[in-house]
Amino acid sequence: MTKDHIVIREAIEQDLDAIVRIINAGGPGGKQREDLPDALPLKYRRAFEAINIESNSLLMVAEWNNLIVGTFQLIFVTYLAGGGRPDAHIEAIHVVSNHRGKGVGTQMLAWAIDESKRRNCRRIQLTSDKQRPEAHRFYIRSGFSLSHEGAKLYL
Amino acid sequence: MTKDHIVIREAIEQDLDAIVRIINAGGPGGKQREDLPDALPLKYRRAFEAINIESNSLLMVAEWNNLIVGTFQLIFVTYLAGGGRPDAHIEAIHVVSNHRGKGVGTQMLAWAIDESKRRNCRRIQLTSDKQRPEAHRFYIRSGFSLSHEGAKLYL
Repeated sequence: MTKDHIVIREAIEQDLDAIVRIINAGGPGGKQREDLPDALPLKYRRAFEAINIESNSLLMVAEWNNLIVGTFQLIFVTYLAGGGRPDAHIEAIHVVSNHRGKGVGTQMLAWAIDESKRRNCRRIQLTSDKQRPEAHRFYIRSGFSLSHEGAKLYL
Repeated sequence: MTKDHIVIREAIEQDLDAIVRIINAGGPGGKQREDLPDALPLKYRRAFEAINIESNSLLMVAEWNNLIVGTFQLIFVTYLAGGGRPDAHIEAIHVVSNHRGKGVGTQMLAWAIDESKRRNCRRIQLTSDKQRPEAHRFYIRSGFSLSHEGAKLYL
């Protein structure tokens, strides 16, 4: 695999099964997040439709040789503090385990940064599980500052 | 000031001047973020319009005796991992300095959590500047877990 063979593009419905399996395999320490039956639960198709409807939200995939090897979601949100310039949020960044360390994440992040600049974003932000120091080093190398605490409350 | 007198409501254009001045006064250590002229720069009116257009983004204020004493923004984003349930993001949380410690933040957060539950959100998330440990203690008391690093890249 070389970087040249990786294509970053918006997800289509045919990618959905692959994306959901990557997301569910992708927890810290590789723990399975949800057991998935062979036929993808309908809730994921509904979520995919909802993401498509949200005009400021892009579900993306990294494709290598017709294989989905990574995914992320990019959301653009306007704040007053930006004076009209939106912030970009990167969420749900995952690379399939046997394709890590090959530049997939770098390519995905580069695409996200380029697209955010093209949309005149003020900054790009993400949160990263504290159990994943190797991810933090990757983000710092990519120019991010770990300036904030990322707080979550499950409802 | 008692909690009973605080009203949490969606911002209207007449609140804009007060909100922008709160946001600009509200940096860690109280540092001024931008010098504001008497007449609010047009970019903030444009940002306000853009936020109004984004259907999944609510700009809120806390009002006490016809005075704007706090503000936050609440954004709902659908992810595949939620299986159709959105996440709520709280951003740009500010309380005017001479009304801190009086329950304004607690009321704002309670409103955000209630609204997020009403919209069937899976979780609520926010990032908080590492220079503000008193804010972190407030979020932890409110049920948040500081499980993630919050990374930012200015473009």
